[in-house]
Amino acid sequence: MNIFNPALLRADADVPAYVPKGNECRLFETAWVRQLPLLLKGPTGCGKTRFVSHMAARLGLPLATVSCHDDLAASDLTGRFLLKGGETVWVDGPLTKSVRDGGICYLDEIVEARKDVAVVIHPLTDDRRILPLERTGETLEAPPGFMLVVSYNPGYQNILKALKPSTKQRFIAIDFDFLPRDQEIVVVSGESGLDEAHVAPLVDLARKLRALKGQDIEEGVSTRLLVYCASLIDSGMPAREAVLAALIEPLTDEPDVKAALREVANAVIV
Amino acid sequence: MNIFNPALLRADADVPAYVPKGNECRLFETAWVRQLPLLLKGPTGCGKTRFVSHMAARLGLPLATVSCHDDLAASDLTGRFLLKGGETVWVDGPLTKSVRDGGICYLDEIVEARKDVAVVIHPLTDDRRILPLERTGETLEAPPGFMLVVSYNPGYQNILKALKPSTKQRFIAIDFDFLPRDQEIVVVSGESGLDEAHVAPLVDLARKLRALKGQDIEEGVSTRLLVYCASLIDSGMPAREAVLAALIEPLTDEPDVKAALREVANAVIV
Amino acid sequence: MNIFNPALLRADADVPAYVPKGNECRLFETAWVRQLPLLLKGPTGCGKTRFVSHMAARLGLPLATVSCHDDLAASDLTGRFLLKGGETVWVDGPLTKSVRDGGICYLDEIVEARKDVAVVIHPLTDDRRILPLERTGETLEAPPGFMLVVSYNPGYQNILKALKPSTKQRFIAIDFDFLPRDQEIVVVSGESGLDEAHVAPLVDLARKLRALKGQDIEEGVSTRLLVYCASLIDSGMPAREAVLAALIEPLTDEPDVKAALREVANAVIV
Amino acid sequence: MNIFNPALLRADADVPAYVPKGNECRLFETAWVRQLPLLLKGPTGCGKTRFVSHMAARLGLPLATVSCHDDLAASDLTGRFLLKGGETVWVDGPLTKSVRDGGICYLDEIVEARKDVAVVIHPLTDDRRILPLERTGETLEAPPGFMLVVSYNPGYQNILKALKPSTKQRFIAIDFDFLPRDQEIVVVSGESGLDEAHVAPLVDLARKLRALKGQDIEEGVSTRLLVYCASLIDSGMPAREAVLAALIEPLTDEPDVKAALREVANAVIV
Amino acid sequence: MNIFNPALLRADADVPAYVPKGNECRLFETAWVRQLPLLLKGPTGCGKTRFVSHMAARLGLPLATVSCHDDLAASDLTGRFLLKGGETVWVDGPLTKSVRDGGICYLDEIVEARKDVAVVIHPLTDDRRILPLERTGETLEAPPGFMLVVSYNPGYQNILKALKPSTKQRFIAIDFDFLPRDQEIVVVSGESGLDEAHVAPLVDLARKLRALKGQDIEEGVSTRLLVYCASLIDSGMPAREAVLAALIEPLTDEPDVKAALREVANAVIV
Amino acid sequence: MNIFNPALLRADADVPAYVPKGNECRLFETAWVRQLPLLLKGPTGCGKTRFVSHMAARLGLPLATVSCHDDLAASDLTGRFLLKGGETVWVDGPLTKSVRDGGICYLDEIVEARKDVAVVIHPLTDDRRILPLERTGETLEAPPGFMLVVSYNPGYQNILKALKPSTKQRFIAIDFDFLPRDQEIVVVSGESGLDEAHVAPLVDLARKLRALKGQDIEEGVSTRLLVYCASLIDSGMPAREAVLAALIEPLTDEPDVKAALREVANAVIV
Repeated sequence: MNIFNPALLRADADVPAYVPKGNECRLFETAWVRQLPLLLKGPTGCGKTRFVSHMAARLGLPLATVSCHDDLAASDLTGRFLLKGGETVWVDGPLTKSVRDGGICYLDEIVEARKDVAVVIHPLTDDRRILPLERTGETLEAPPGFMLVVSYNPGYQNILKALKPSTKQRFIAIDFDFLPRDQEIVVVSGESGLDEAHVAPLVDLARKLRALKGQDIEEGVSTRLLVYCASLIDSGMPAREAVLAALIEPLTDEPDVKAALREVANAVIV
Repeated sequence: MNIFNPALLRADADVPAYVPKGNECRLFETAWVRQLPLLLKGPTGCGKTRFVSHMAARLGLPLATVSCHDDLAASDLTGRFLLKGGETVWVDGPLTKSVRDGGICYLDEIVEARKDVAVVIHPLTDDRRILPLERTGETLEAPPGFMLVVSYNPGYQNILKALKPSTKQRFIAIDFDFLPRDQEIVVVSGESGLDEAHVAPLVDLARKLRALKGQDIEEGVSTRLLVYCASLIDSGMPAREAVLAALIEPLTDEPDVKAALREVANAVIV
Repeated sequence: MNIFNPALLRADADVPAYVPKGNECRLFETAWVRQLPLLLKGPTGCGKTRFVSHMAARLGLPLATVSCHDDLAASDLTGRFLLKGGETVWVDGPLTKSVRDGGICYLDEIVEARKDVAVVIHPLTDDRRILPLERTGETLEAPPGFMLVVSYNPGYQNILKALKPSTKQRFIAIDFDFLPRDQEIVVVSGESGLDEAHVAPLVDLARKLRALKGQDIEEGVSTRLLVYCASLIDSGMPAREAVLAALIEPLTDEPDVKAALREVANAVIV
Repeated sequence: MNIFNPALLRADADVPAYVPKGNECRLFETAWVRQLPLLLKGPTGCGKTRFVSHMAARLGLPLATVSCHDDLAASDLTGRFLLKGGETVWVDGPLTKSVRDGGICYLDEIVEARKDVAVVIHPLTDDRRILPLERTGETLEAPPGFMLVVSYNPGYQNILKALKPSTKQRFIAIDFDFLPRDQEIVVVSGESGLDEAHVAPLVDLARKLRALKGQDIEEGVSTRLLVYCASLIDSGMPAREAVLAALIEPLTDEPDVKAALREVANAVIV
Repeated sequence: MNIFNPALLRADADVPAYVPKGNECRLFETAWVRQLPLLLKGPTGCGKTRFVSHMAARLGLPLATVSCHDDLAASDLTGRFLLKGGETVWVDGPLTKSVRDGGICYLDEIVEARKDVAVVIHPLTDDRRILPLERTGETLEAPPGFMLVVSYNPGYQNILKALKPSTKQRFIAIDFDFLPRDQEIVVVSGESGLDEAHVAPLVDLARKLRALKGQDIEEGVSTRLLVYCASLIDSGMPAREAVLAALIEPLTDEPDVKAALREVANAVIV
Repeated sequence: MNIFNPALLRADADVPAYVPKGNECRLFETAWVRQLPLLLKGPTGCGKTRFVSHMAARLGLPLATVSCHDDLAASDLTGRFLLKGGETVWVDGPLTKSVRDGGICYLDEIVEARKDVAVVIHPLTDDRRILPLERTGETLEAPPGFMLVVSYNPGYQNILKALKPSTKQRFIAIDFDFLPRDQEIVVVSGESGLDEAHVAPLVDLARKLRALKGQDIEEGVSTRLLVYCASLIDSGMPAREAVLAALIEPLTDEPDVKAALREVANAVIV
């Protein structure tokens, strides 16, 4: 199976569809073989999570995904003591389970997590590949079949929430972006059921809106919203109503910006 | 049953009355059919909560409503361990229950919640439609009958409390506003029992006060306050006393602003 | 019984004395009949708490009063799980008890409470009149005999501690102020035992000091302090010593301001 | 027994010595008789705590003293649930005990405590004189024999840590200051054992140093430090060494200020 | 065995390879003999952790490594009480274990830890060499075989997170930097399997990128990233793709900086 | 035994060596006899801790030392409830133990502790000499054999972390500084084993570096670092390497400052 064929939209029932944009599949495989941790960078909704699901399925590996957030602490990943029958019993967290059993552990939006999370993964990302569990006194050695993948959105980073260089420098990194036009049309049509001819102007509109990022809107339209929009149209909603609900309202709350975006949309969607 | 008939004020005993303003009922139904999560935007008291109750009843779906606040954490939604008979037992939260049983889970004023709430709903709002329960190790797949609805008031958002684009872009969105004049008269009269002729000047006054929003007052008069005011009058309170207690005192504490609003009121309410 | 008779100082042994200043008794009764929540605004010591006690007694309703503070959380109102005999047992908080049993629940100085308190009362203050207990999974419907009353002092509000419009707009509101001169003389004399002739100059002094509010002193003299002062004099303290201890020392710590207030006092109290 | 006799230094073995400066003993007694709460204001070491001990002993009342601090919460005063034999058992805090048993409860430096403490005492300081225990559901009525006394040092107050007017206006207040010269000599000599002739220049020096407060030093010399200094001299330390260790080093860490204070001292202590 | 021979890359299977840059091995041994605590300073990925592993193995000492982070508290190092069979049982933390058993305790990035950690090690770093366990009441005396080593990266320090002088002055300190060019080529080739001829231009590129530190990039390329890059090339990735993924993407998210770094890389890697 | 003899370096095996600089031993003894609490002020590593150990041994008193830190709370000193056999059992903290058993309780760097610590010691430092244990309801009276000693470093104090005057004024205070030159040579030689001739230039260098405090370096070289440096030289390290590792690297991370200090060192150490 040639995994670099961009025309290959659906492989088989067990492998989530994924359209490669560059060498990311090969880099993932090489990182897997050489036991190197991987960092995915890119904007919202550009397919990072889908890519990891795809690679995990293709490599036949179990995948544990953890969505990081402000209150996610190291112990949410490593485990904690719970009371059972009057005893405190240790219960593994998802990272510990992955290290014990092998497979991919994917920490989505790692910069959102509390600082101790970044540090708990340090011993897993150098040549020691160990996970010290301070509270139980164990030190787990990651088996060859364990791989750590993390992601973050550079567009959101600020001073308080940036990956420290001492963490970044522990990963091979891939920079993601949105799909090229023709590939995105194929994907959105495939996901929504709407034919490509009607999807094409939606993708063109999305690309126009993405170009406005940083001026009037904080983030460009994601492929996911395009699929939502095409789904609404496929269900019989008028195109302009679908564009308003799925491509414009989720982008902005400002009446002025909203009016401007509707003008842009009306020029494209007739 | 034609659900877009604006004259239809009360459907039947089990369906809370709701007067549609646009295509929102159709959008809700389409989102339901296509399994898309829904975001409702709009000011205080414009009917978002009522709309969700109405749609849940019409679609025959159970509805779980959670009012979000500063201290609402992910575990308040997903569940927590409690001590029972010396054992720690997992108890589902309202979101987990909805995902297990199907139906609508409505998170009201989601920007108020702690940040981890926004992230816990991410895997439920993409094509995976899953709810990972890190603490129990379960991963629930949402059944087709599950729908997530969230709301927020764009007027209150600030830098610390804004929905992140990565969250917003996971929803179809509807922008709500107050009812048109004639519809609001019908609603307020119906809810309060006061006849429409006496309600009309109250609605006119409310529309005048709403136009002052952002200048002297922070937020316009809600339909709810209009119903309160009409109820007081219906109970025999003089109109000006009712207007003071229900439309002016709740809006401002500033003596100057209060005096100005009373002048506006006195010109309308004789 | 004509409840609007201002001369009626003491009704009977079970009803705390209260001298109405305007239509507040009628408004309270109407709100009670129409099941509308009530908001009391006004400065320290102007009689808000007494007014609620009076109305509860007159209407024959049980009254639960909660003094809100910085650390009061929603669970202090709704209830919490406690360990009993090795089991976690739910124990109702004062708000939940009121909702179960009916009667008035009075949240004094609600702006002091944590933000989640304001939100927990939202579903009780719209047409649903429900109290969802997320932790037990129960949703209580308030019986017709339940009424929610809250108060705050607009003079203390700041940006961090203001009632949000979405909360304010759920209440009928009454603005309180100090009693008119002659009524206050009657009240202070009645409470302290000092005859009205000796109380009158104290009330005159208090009114002079209240006029200085915002200039040298943060808050005007409360009726309560007047009662204290009259009590001291009634016990034989010289008037000037009583005024210093009860009307001036509690108002300010600044030596300059204190001296100025003593001059004002000496001109009135001989 | 004439309690206003300033020459009365020691009453009997059970009553701690106290030298009244004005009408404070009479005010305390009147407040006690009229059931009014009392607020003591004054600088460090001027005798507030001693005064309360003295009055409690003279009135034959039990005294519970609580030193307030940043982490003192309402539950430290009211009580908390503890695990005993697998049950959660309520244990009264010092305030609750005082209210149950009667006597004086003295909250020293109340502005230091957490905000909820100030509010927990509100219902005890108005005509209700009740202590609601939210967590047990009890509401205690204070017996006639209960009295609340609080103190604070106005010199330390800042914006974050000031008594709110709504709290201050619930108390009769007394402003304390240091003893007059001759009385202070008697007290320091009595406490330290050093004869009055040798104490006199120390008191004179202290009065000079107190006059510098606000310029070079934050707080004036307390009577307590004078007693320490006299004790060191009484034990054979040279006067200048004792003055340095007991009157200067505790006041400042700045070398320049220290040198200046030593010059002041050397002019007085030979 | 002459441990100062820089040509000695691998000692034996049990001793991790380490190439000394100066007198650091001798200083470590002397500190060990004289029972002096040791502080390692230096940038990310310059080999501090490897150096400690190397010395521990060479001296035949057990090594406990703790990665410090924002939420690491003293009790994470000393131990805590856990519930076992209804009893609270003390469980030693890694520092306590080291003190009991002897060997090296290495606190990596100590400035990241909470402040109480710095203080808990104070009594271990003066002539007392004790570890007081306040919660159990024990005071452990460190055996001669115990040594404390800590590290931090001076480049990250800020006002909030700096080692206090009172902590720093308890350690002998060594300043680390990257390996000299030829040594680094040997190390990277040995770790990655790529021959030295192909590693040499990668090291040259890394040295160019390190020189940009503080201008466009926050931290220079670590030896670890060089090993990653050489591993990718050794697995068949084109050199420029490997350089992008392993040396450039981990350094920066800025498109402009990235382009500039690629130009630098393209000039070196053909 | 004449304890004021500065030549007395080691008394006997049980008394840690201490060289008095002034009247501090006598002041300590007098404070002990008169039951006065003692405050030690001075820079890092000037011998405060050693002084307390010395005096405790000489007076034959047990010594409990607590290193204070940001997270040290009052309950860490007084005690806490622990679960034992299903019961909550009170366990004394080190301060409570000292008060019960007598002896010296030494709170090192007390300004670092949480604010409630400063207040918990207040009743122990006035004439009451009591320790109220709010949580158990006990009030301990300190026996005559109890003495409280605290220390802090005035050089670190800032607005957030200063001893309040109301705390300072409860102590006799001693200001410490480094040893005079000749005494320091004797001490460093005695502790390190290096002969005085080789120690002398190290002490001279330290005195030069101390003079730079506040300009390039935050704190002067401690006697402890001098002992470290002499120990390294005594073990055969070249003097300049020892000076770099023990006197310069612990003082600064700035390359410029480091170079300047090395120049200073090279002028003294040949």
